[in-house]
Amino acid sequence: MENIKSPFRGIANDVRGRVSCYKEDWISGISSGFGILAPTTYIFFASALPVIAFGEQLSRDTDGSLSTVETLASTALCGIIHSIVGGQPLLILGVAEPTVIMYTYLYNFAKDREDLGQKIYLAWAGWVCVWTALILFLLAIFNAGDLINRFTRIAGELFGMLIAVLFIQQAIKGMVTEFKIPKDEDSNLDKYQFQWLYTNGLLGIIFTFGLVYTALKSRKGRFWWYGTGWLRSFVADYGVPLMVVVWTALSFSVPSKVPSGVPRRLFSPLPWEAGSLEHWSVMKDMGKVPLAYIFAAFIPAVMIAGLYFFDHSVASQLAQQKEFNLKKPSAYHYDILLLGFMTLLCGLIGLPPSNGVLPQSPMHTKSLAVLKRQFMKKKMVKSAKESIKQNASNSEIYGKMQAVFIEMESSPVTSEVKELEDLKEVIMKGEKEGEKSKEKFDPEKHIDAYLPVRVNEQRVSNLLQSLLVAASVCAMPAIKLIPTSVLWGYFAYMAIDSLPGNQFWERMLLLFITPGRQYKVLEKDHASFVELVPYKYIVIFTLFQFVYFLVCYGVTWIPVAGILFPVPFFLLISIRQHILPKLFPPHHLQELDAAEYDEISGAPWRSLSLSFRVSNFQTIFNTKP
Amino acid sequence: MENIKSPFRGIANDVRGRVSCYKEDWISGISSGFGILAPTTYIFFASALPVIAFGEQLSRDTDGSLSTVETLASTALCGIIHSIVGGQPLLILGVAEPTVIMYTYLYNFAKDREDLGQKIYLAWAGWVCVWTALILFLLAIFNAGDLINRFTRIAGELFGMLIAVLFIQQAIKGMVTEFKIPKDEDSNLDKYQFQWLYTNGLLGIIFTFGLVYTALKSRKGRFWWYGTGWLRSFVADYGVPLMVVVWTALSFSVPSKVPSGVPRRLFSPLPWEAGSLEHWSVMKDMGKVPLAYIFAAFIPAVMIAGLYFFDHSVASQLAQQKEFNLKKPSAYHYDILLLGFMTLLCGLIGLPPSNGVLPQSPMHTKSLAVLKRQFMKKKMVKSAKESIKQNASNSEIYGKMQAVFIEMESSPVTSEVKELEDLKEVIMKGEKEGEKSKEKFDPEKHIDAYLPVRVNEQRVSNLLQSLLVAASVCAMPAIKLIPTSVLWGYFAYMAIDSLPGNQFWERMLLLFITPGRQYKVLEKDHASFVELVPYKYIVIFTLFQFVYFLVCYGVTWIPVAGILFPVPFFLLISIRQHILPKLFPPHHLQELDAAEYDEISGAPWRSLSLSFRVSNFQTIFNTKP
Repeated sequence: MENIKSPFRGIANDVRGRVSCYKEDWISGISSGFGILAPTTYIFFASALPVIAFGEQLSRDTDGSLSTVETLASTALCGIIHSIVGGQPLLILGVAEPTVIMYTYLYNFAKDREDLGQKIYLAWAGWVCVWTALILFLLAIFNAGDLINRFTRIAGELFGMLIAVLFIQQAIKGMVTEFKIPKDEDSNLDKYQFQWLYTNGLLGIIFTFGLVYTALKSRKGRFWWYGTGWLRSFVADYGVPLMVVVWTALSFSVPSKVPSGVPRRLFSPLPWEAGSLEHWSVMKDMGKVPLAYIFAAFIPAVMIAGLYFFDHSVASQLAQQKEFNLKKPSAYHYDILLLGFMTLLCGLIGLPPSNGVLPQSPMHTKSLAVLKRQFMKKKMVKSAKESIKQNASNSEIYGKMQAVFIEMESSPVTSEVKELEDLKEVIMKGEKEGEKSKEKFDPEKHIDAYLPVRVNEQRVSNLLQSLLVAASVCAMPAIKLIPTSVLWGYFAYMAIDSLPGNQFWERMLLLFITPGRQYKVLEKDHASFVELVPYKYIVIFTLFQFVYFLVCYGVTWIPVAGILFPVPFFLLISIRQHILPKLFPPHHLQELDAAEYDEISGAPWRSLSLSFRVSNFQTIFNTKP
Repeated sequence: MENIKSPFRGIANDVRGRVSCYKEDWISGISSGFGILAPTTYIFFASALPVIAFGEQLSRDTDGSLSTVETLASTALCGIIHSIVGGQPLLILGVAEPTVIMYTYLYNFAKDREDLGQKIYLAWAGWVCVWTALILFLLAIFNAGDLINRFTRIAGELFGMLIAVLFIQQAIKGMVTEFKIPKDEDSNLDKYQFQWLYTNGLLGIIFTFGLVYTALKSRKGRFWWYGTGWLRSFVADYGVPLMVVVWTALSFSVPSKVPSGVPRRLFSPLPWEAGSLEHWSVMKDMGKVPLAYIFAAFIPAVMIAGLYFFDHSVASQLAQQKEFNLKKPSAYHYDILLLGFMTLLCGLIGLPPSNGVLPQSPMHTKSLAVLKRQFMKKKMVKSAKESIKQNASNSEIYGKMQAVFIEMESSPVTSEVKELEDLKEVIMKGEKEGEKSKEKFDPEKHIDAYLPVRVNEQRVSNLLQSLLVAASVCAMPAIKLIPTSVLWGYFAYMAIDSLPGNQFWERMLLLFITPGRQYKVLEKDHASFVELVPYKYIVIFTLFQFVYFLVCYGVTWIPVAGILFPVPFFLLISIRQHILPKLFPPHHLQELDAAEYDEISGAPWRSLSLSFRVSNFQTIFNTKP
């Protein structure tokens, strides 16, 4: 109740914190020079591809009311706004799967009502956004951001699994439709004759599986034995968009005797065509929505607001994990407020709203950490080498390196830097043991080993990647060349790629390992629960979660009431808080699903890991041999 | 010259050795009961599938003069003969790739000659077989088998690599022909219209890649984490033939509107149709071959005899590797003599001859070792448990177990068995340390750990698998359901599966690993040369081998003179013996390509490893958790 008594407290804190470093946000971005382009393009591809795929999905599901132009436009618009006036500039925004599902439910509801229909569907969706924005404002004002730790890992895992299953479902649905005539199309067209439909389907199978296989292989490029470090990093970072380009190029190797339209490609009106332009005047139609429906819009709005609040905050939280050692403050409350404004704006101009996305947000922070590291290492090695040349004492060498570090950090600390202690020790060791072992300090090697993680916290990369998304709206004629089957493959890729790291998934796999072979799991990296929780409890917990998952998935299949699919997730909060602790011994529950409010003391609270691998620092910093 | 002075010496020795254990060969096979069926079916599938694939290849290349019926018939016939009167019954016979290549060259030579042509091609090939048989007789009589150690690993590696590349070439050629009208076919047929040709090609791509991917995955079944040990072993052992069945079944899911003949399936006349029956009277046509061509047949005969001598002996040698601890004698000389007779027989009845095949022969021995082990373990554990029950002393326990072991071995040794020393030590250790630690001897665990490798050396499994091949000749109507594209996938699978373990291939890969990352190789299992030979010498040796490989591969592309493709391999013997030792320091050469005749003393001579993994015993005995 504390939260409700002091409205605006969170927002005010957030604003105060971020304003104080606002200028620095720009300066440190611009001063990184061209280096900033690496994380920018990396995040741009990771962000734009799913948005294109969601656009195609939305276009199918809403009979073309919304398509890739709108999802890209929303992502670009919200991204630009957030990067300039947003609280946490590391957070990446985009149209995400929950939005697509919600807009599909809205469409299915609207299209059959006489007084709504496809014509004023977007106007009605606009009203949903108005209500959503209102609820988000209230959540922000009354400090709901403080509640984020009520969502424990079990909810995140279930949500991640649901999204993965929906992706796979979309991939399969998409592949099946490649064998069928799309609705409302003229079945007399040459390309819809049986032989060409079948050809289109077979090409679809080849492109879908081809993309999945090559994308998954290229993701693992970093761990290849072969090729130079540069090549492996490039393949790992840009392999997936590259494969989309490669398979799109291959799709043009189809002989010219095959009628045009086989294979099917992405369908979307161009942004400057009438089909797109009419969306921008949705606001005018909002008055035409009957009053009853305006109020009915409140129900989906509650669901969307709940989802957005959850998704946005968790994405932001994962972008600011402890391991990143961020120096600038968070802005959960203020960002929810801003999200409300952006949702309102999108609703009024007939776009599906954007919110904080996973896994792109933590990927963004991670890529900036790599960038910062390269800069720091270079400068510190240079300083150390200069000092060594001048025959400086070890403490002088360290002193100068520390000064460089502090300068680069641009933080108010001016004396000792605690995190450099290890590095200091290595250097000092040489001094004590006399001249001879002085050579032991190898700047390249030791700085690399002991340099703490620092992130280049700035706004430039986010702004630039949003501008690239905006540019790609204009590149629609090129994007339309992508075969739809490549996008179905991309959906399957996203699903498969999201599973490792999801402990729910890993526990389910564990059930299929015969007891005699479970030592194999222990031999590799594994979560602590594997060793600490008795097998029996793991099984019960996992089966409970699986049944609950089936319920969540089942709800999505209910025709119109499916819009309530977030309800089980909200319910889970109180099930986790009140029922689960009665079924499982607290220390086992703590291992399986840590919650800050659990009574076990001493156990560190782990952030929601959701379904995305973000904390494995080994993978980023071990890119070079 | 020793060899020439004492003709028949080798044959006489072989016959004497094998006659003495001939009766036992049958008894120990029959006494294994139904257990023998596991290795039998395992080898049957491993043997029949390539023979079917080679039949299809041969049918393409000889315009149907020979096809799957003939390759299967030859394999069955020679297999039955060899299993009954052959020397080494562990050796598996079959029509192999060199035979297919040779018969293709013969066909290409014959078809354009007016006085030969397709009509008496098989009769002429019969003459080639007559000469080949004659040369094999001479090789056997004059003890050429003693020369087998002149072929060092470099020759085996090159040969394995050449076969792998020819397989890949066949797979690609096959996939391309799926898009084309086969020659001599009516291009007006519905199935040869552009849209169906294209459909056929696309289905071909799906089936080919589908088979390769699933076959390679199932081969690794033994190392999966999931599923029971039984399931994993089954998938690893029978996954590949299972996948051929699965993809064949999937090929029938093509909608009925697609004209019959799409996808294309294996083409072969049935054994009881005229096309097959006329082959059996080839002998009568042999008189029609002009005298000049009868003598000209000597040239290919030299090549074939050389290849057969090499292939047959190496396959036999790998089936009798030291690690298998075989107790019965070898019969290299006698088996070459018998091979001559079988080649003659096949030639006279118009079949392509069979010879000893890789990797099936060592696979056969390995599967029999697993079988024997299961038997022995069971009996010894039973004996040990009984003794323990009766409170026998440790030396009594060991004594009884040793007696069981000796009885199972059915060898003349009756006193101490040296290879059981380790086991004895474990048991005796308990005695010395008093009653308490007596419990330390765990029959199940320790017998499993210390039981030496023993092979059930008998003739029954080989005879049965040959009979199964004979039965599958009658099952041709079912075999004809396999889509040709599945066979192209099988060719690619055979190629890819043969590469790991070929050191030439592994050294080539090594060249693509940047120096900073080579520690990755050292972390895993690796050949000793990686550590012992300087990188420079590895590079030079590998580049030499690669250039030589290009020469060998190039020769196969020469139209008719391509028949000389074995010549570079024969030349390699003297290059290895006389030139390579001048270019490389002897101890490095010893590591890269050990030869018995090299002067380095003390280094153990390693058997030709060819391109097949056969010695990794870990993989067979670690099948259960």
